[in-house]
Amino acid sequence: MEKYFILGFLGSILALGFSVIQRRRVLSVSEGNERMQKIAAAIRSGANAYLKHQYTTVFKVFGIVFVLLLILAFASGGRMLSRVTPFAFLTGGIFSMLAGYIGMKIATSANARTANAASESLNKGLRVAFSSGSVMGFSVVGLGMLDVTMWFFILRYALGITEPEQIGSIMVMNGMGASFMALFARVGGGIYTKAADVGADLVGKVEAGIPEDDPRNPATIADNVGDNVGDVAGMGADLYESYVGSILATFSLGAIAGYGFQGMLLPLLLAVVGILCSILGSFLIRTKEDASQEDLLKSLRTGTYSAAILAAVLGAPLTYFLLHSWGVYIAILCGLVGGCVIGYFTEYYTSDTYKPTRELAAESETGSATIIIGGLSLGMRSTMVSILVVAAAVLLSFYCAGGARSFNMGLYGIGIAGVGMLSTLGITLATDAYGPVADNAGGIAQMAELPEEVRERTDALDSLGNTTAATGKGFAIGSASLTALALLVSYVDIVQSKTEEVLDLSLTNPLMLVGLFIGTMLTFLFTSLTMNGVERAAQSIVVEVRRQFKEIKGIMDYQADPEYARCVALCTKGALHEMIAPALIAVVMPIITGLILGPVGVVGMLGGVSVSGFAMAVFMSNAGGAWDNAKKYIEAGHHGGKGSEQHKAAVVGDTVGDPLKDTSGPSLNILIKLCSTVSIVFSGLILAFNLVGLL
Amino acid sequence: MEKYFILGFLGSILALGFSVIQRRRVLSVSEGNERMQKIAAAIRSGANAYLKHQYTTVFKVFGIVFVLLLILAFASGGRMLSRVTPFAFLTGGIFSMLAGYIGMKIATSANARTANAASESLNKGLRVAFSSGSVMGFSVVGLGMLDVTMWFFILRYALGITEPEQIGSIMVMNGMGASFMALFARVGGGIYTKAADVGADLVGKVEAGIPEDDPRNPATIADNVGDNVGDVAGMGADLYESYVGSILATFSLGAIAGYGFQGMLLPLLLAVVGILCSILGSFLIRTKEDASQEDLLKSLRTGTYSAAILAAVLGAPLTYFLLHSWGVYIAILCGLVGGCVIGYFTEYYTSDTYKPTRELAAESETGSATIIIGGLSLGMRSTMVSILVVAAAVLLSFYCAGGARSFNMGLYGIGIAGVGMLSTLGITLATDAYGPVADNAGGIAQMAELPEEVRERTDALDSLGNTTAATGKGFAIGSASLTALALLVSYVDIVQSKTEEVLDLSLTNPLMLVGLFIGTMLTFLFTSLTMNGVERAAQSIVVEVRRQFKEIKGIMDYQADPEYARCVALCTKGALHEMIAPALIAVVMPIITGLILGPVGVVGMLGGVSVSGFAMAVFMSNAGGAWDNAKKYIEAGHHGGKGSEQHKAAVVGDTVGDPLKDTSGPSLNILIKLCSTVSIVFSGLILAFNLVGLL
Repeated sequence: MEKYFILGFLGSILALGFSVIQRRRVLSVSEGNERMQKIAAAIRSGANAYLKHQYTTVFKVFGIVFVLLLILAFASGGRMLSRVTPFAFLTGGIFSMLAGYIGMKIATSANARTANAASESLNKGLRVAFSSGSVMGFSVVGLGMLDVTMWFFILRYALGITEPEQIGSIMVMNGMGASFMALFARVGGGIYTKAADVGADLVGKVEAGIPEDDPRNPATIADNVGDNVGDVAGMGADLYESYVGSILATFSLGAIAGYGFQGMLLPLLLAVVGILCSILGSFLIRTKEDASQEDLLKSLRTGTYSAAILAAVLGAPLTYFLLHSWGVYIAILCGLVGGCVIGYFTEYYTSDTYKPTRELAAESETGSATIIIGGLSLGMRSTMVSILVVAAAVLLSFYCAGGARSFNMGLYGIGIAGVGMLSTLGITLATDAYGPVADNAGGIAQMAELPEEVRERTDALDSLGNTTAATGKGFAIGSASLTALALLVSYVDIVQSKTEEVLDLSLTNPLMLVGLFIGTMLTFLFTSLTMNGVERAAQSIVVEVRRQFKEIKGIMDYQADPEYARCVALCTKGALHEMIAPALIAVVMPIITGLILGPVGVVGMLGGVSVSGFAMAVFMSNAGGAWDNAKKYIEAGHHGGKGSEQHKAAVVGDTVGDPLKDTSGPSLNILIKLCSTVSIVFSGLILAFNLVGLL
Repeated sequence: MEKYFILGFLGSILALGFSVIQRRRVLSVSEGNERMQKIAAAIRSGANAYLKHQYTTVFKVFGIVFVLLLILAFASGGRMLSRVTPFAFLTGGIFSMLAGYIGMKIATSANARTANAASESLNKGLRVAFSSGSVMGFSVVGLGMLDVTMWFFILRYALGITEPEQIGSIMVMNGMGASFMALFARVGGGIYTKAADVGADLVGKVEAGIPEDDPRNPATIADNVGDNVGDVAGMGADLYESYVGSILATFSLGAIAGYGFQGMLLPLLLAVVGILCSILGSFLIRTKEDASQEDLLKSLRTGTYSAAILAAVLGAPLTYFLLHSWGVYIAILCGLVGGCVIGYFTEYYTSDTYKPTRELAAESETGSATIIIGGLSLGMRSTMVSILVVAAAVLLSFYCAGGARSFNMGLYGIGIAGVGMLSTLGITLATDAYGPVADNAGGIAQMAELPEEVRERTDALDSLGNTTAATGKGFAIGSASLTALALLVSYVDIVQSKTEEVLDLSLTNPLMLVGLFIGTMLTFLFTSLTMNGVERAAQSIVVEVRRQFKEIKGIMDYQADPEYARCVALCTKGALHEMIAPALIAVVMPIITGLILGPVGVVGMLGGVSVSGFAMAVFMSNAGGAWDNAKKYIEAGHHGGKGSEQHKAAVVGDTVGDPLKDTSGPSLNILIKLCSTVSIVFSGLILAFNLVGLL
């Protein structure tokens, strides 16, 4: 059976190959006139410089953790930690970084090209932007497959481990490197992009009254750089982590359920099938030259839904052949359908074509305070659907895949549902990652003073991107919750396998309750730190932009150029400085909790952070998205339109929402998984030393 | 041993008697000049009218629930529910209502008197306001003692039940009526007060630029009425519920722990001792005639801390005499100290004498968006201390009172810690409840155009009230979390006593995880509904105030009186309409969860709502408090002072914070306990019928 794992390499080659072809397609388009090339180059060099700094900082932290893991593994003779884990920690981190880096590289090459292509037609613009998104989408899944398959072969053949249980419990720890890197990328990139955005908007739009992306705004290049380092590189690393994490957690549960290598092969092959379906789906994304925005959306949806349906169809024989269980197949379907439903409702709550966002826009009539209260309320209300969908998916997968008959097989169902949700990530991520490219293209069109119609087209692409991004977020967030539960269960199994004592995991155990409190606290603390990071970095931009407007004469009448580079440098400095504390807390807290409260407290903490983190992430993403689109709705001429008091109120809402939806919210997805893998990696240490164990 | 329960009546008589004496002291002061009397009468009649409407609505709901409970109890022959519970549900509701009503009555009589006394001296103003607070504080504890003791005697002697376990499990259900009434009072009153406040501020302060409590503002009477129906009547019902809830939960745990009637006598007598100490503490609150604001605060603190220390000292022999356990005594100390520590940190995060609020005020420099982000971040960060204190209190009480030796005795420790925290509620509530009276006095001073110095004095009293209110909130919120945990444990015990099957309460049980998700969802949903309620009601006030400014000529130059009564009526209508949904959801959700997921799911839900509700409540209270005081700090002349752009930004923050800190936040405390008692009351029904039981 193990030989079929070679198909993982095939999937990887397919995905990476398709990614290379798409890259060529993008690069074959012209970057436009000299001014566009110059702007694109400035964005590119800003993004490169930031990522270089970021990676340098992160590598130092990685180096320290690597050495600590090495000491723990070798000093304990492999008892507390497998000797493989420190190295897998490194590859996970490097691959996750690469996924983000490749995405950023192509996005900064595609932005001016998209603007240029959009000056010909909407459809051409879409094609360039979507191809650029595909490069990242398929790089992420290709690299993920490579990492997973490679380590499987190392463990199985190079190290000769024959027990599936042992391979599963080692491989589940491999997610830590990817999660750790992803957290840095999301938090750092998220702080960068939102500091620039908030800083640019507060002074430019609100105080000076100039439009977004106006070349007179000193923070405008930084803002565009931010789209690439946050929304692209950060998202790439994030979804790499989600993808690999869901597969690895299911590996571990497959072994626990007694499915042996078949139980591992299923998520792997499901992912390979998903890659195939995603490529086929991509070919369906074609439109006529004179396509309207609706046609474009329809075309994108045809692509993603066809891929999902195809994966669902092909999943049936695959599951039956491997595990002879229709119940497991239903679990996969739960994942696929659940992701789509969450995506749909994310769109419902955040798009201005539906009631909630339109009502939110109307709340601007009574000022910024009411639109803020309204957005907070909308975001909180919107958690209901996501939670009910996840709850239904968990229960259905659990009971269909095993449940009353076999508890562990039921848990495997929850894990495989997460993999099902992400199986067609290649194409969903492509439709998601094209958004920031379109956003940047709009910025370049504005700064290069291209004709009004070009900006209109890039705006149409951008707005389309907001819709597809909502769907993408649904998948990311839904899968995160399922993977987190799978990891929690793996943790319990791994701990229980190392000790004779039966853990009392009952909720009435005060250690468990206190753990729940600590986990919830972690969610709030992490959110606070990331929001604060954005705010502090943004304030330094505000001060700088105000200074430039005041000191550099002639900016306003285009006589002098603002000093873009200073804002870029300030954002870089701010983001690097502010990302450290939240990232470290995610690693340190599970260890401290474990050292004091022992494994039971850790389980409680993981439950608390997973549940509250999920709810908070949905709340923040949707509140932020709704504010953003309420503002756009007003700008489209409702409630007084641009420049009115209502618009100003909506801009305040949008600004408050920025760090919520693009920094804190998406980082929480990673936080909950990083906490789980850190707990798993240090489980041996915690079992050996903990305070309550002494009582 | 049971005969000592008669001391409960003694405590009740002591408290109620002291309350009557304080009432006389208040009424002996003059209400001031004719204009003051007229304004006070308008506020009084508005508050009376609202409460009349509120009680009418609530009684209808109570009637329906009463009948349903009656059917459940009698149709099942008392198996699913004790026949006593429906009647205890009624008395709990009525007593909770009375507690709020008495508070409102005295507050609306004391406001003009405080203003009048303050025109003589600061100290005289304080005495009247504090006496008025004492009336409510001691009524709450007196009525609570009466309810608890009365039902004990009915069960023990009238019905002749001799088993402590049986009495404990019946009495723990008696909390439901009080919680249900408290939720209505908090939510309805909270929506009323904040709708009026937000509505008055948005148009009056922000748009028309007139000061707070200006007689030209049509919403100003409604605003003052709101202080009485929300901050006074709502708080009275709320703390009645907390007080009785903590005692009843401990009754049940005492019986479970095998302590028999001694285990019930301890919380009862501890409360009686607390009443005595509170009365003694009140006598220590005296200042010299020329006392400064600092002297006043010192004097108030001397009173509350002396009472707490005295209770701690007297608690030692009491505990030892009854249970021969120093461990239980340490648990009581944990509660007393924990409440003070949470109170201190609440003040630290929300008072402008400390760094966090000052930094928040500085964030107004970059506009309203940054001060909103900063406040959200501050509130979330502030949850850390409260959670760590509760975690420490839970673990210490558990391990000292039993822990490793006896699990159930440990749980009793958690319950008694909650009682310890609230034992001196009489005096802490008195210092808390005097705040809204001082606030109203300021409003009357402003409207009656009393000399500037009077307003300054009432402002000093009001600001003092903010500080003591912070401490009061610390006690309320801390005790809520401990009581919720105690109720959760009682629930499990009651369910387990009714079924042979051993419940799998492990966190890895998917039913438990799904329950956690549902509980967290409930917190978010409830918060959203209450915030939305305030917003909708406030918007109707904004529209009405704008209309009056526009249509009634001469308001601005004092030529015409605004139509205050219309705003009062609109607030009443809005609050009554908006309070129904959130209150019902709190009752319906535990039942639906139970019917679908069974008792395990209910336990998960209770865990989820308790933990997330606690964190959310702390976050909201502190964020709102900090925004409020940041605004006051700016008004005191920092960052541009009154009327500056920074001040406008801070007003937006304050307005956003209003529903958070005075409606949603405090209601969450009640929500988590109501969910628990509803679950307990319907546990028989749920055990008999639930969907997962069929699988």
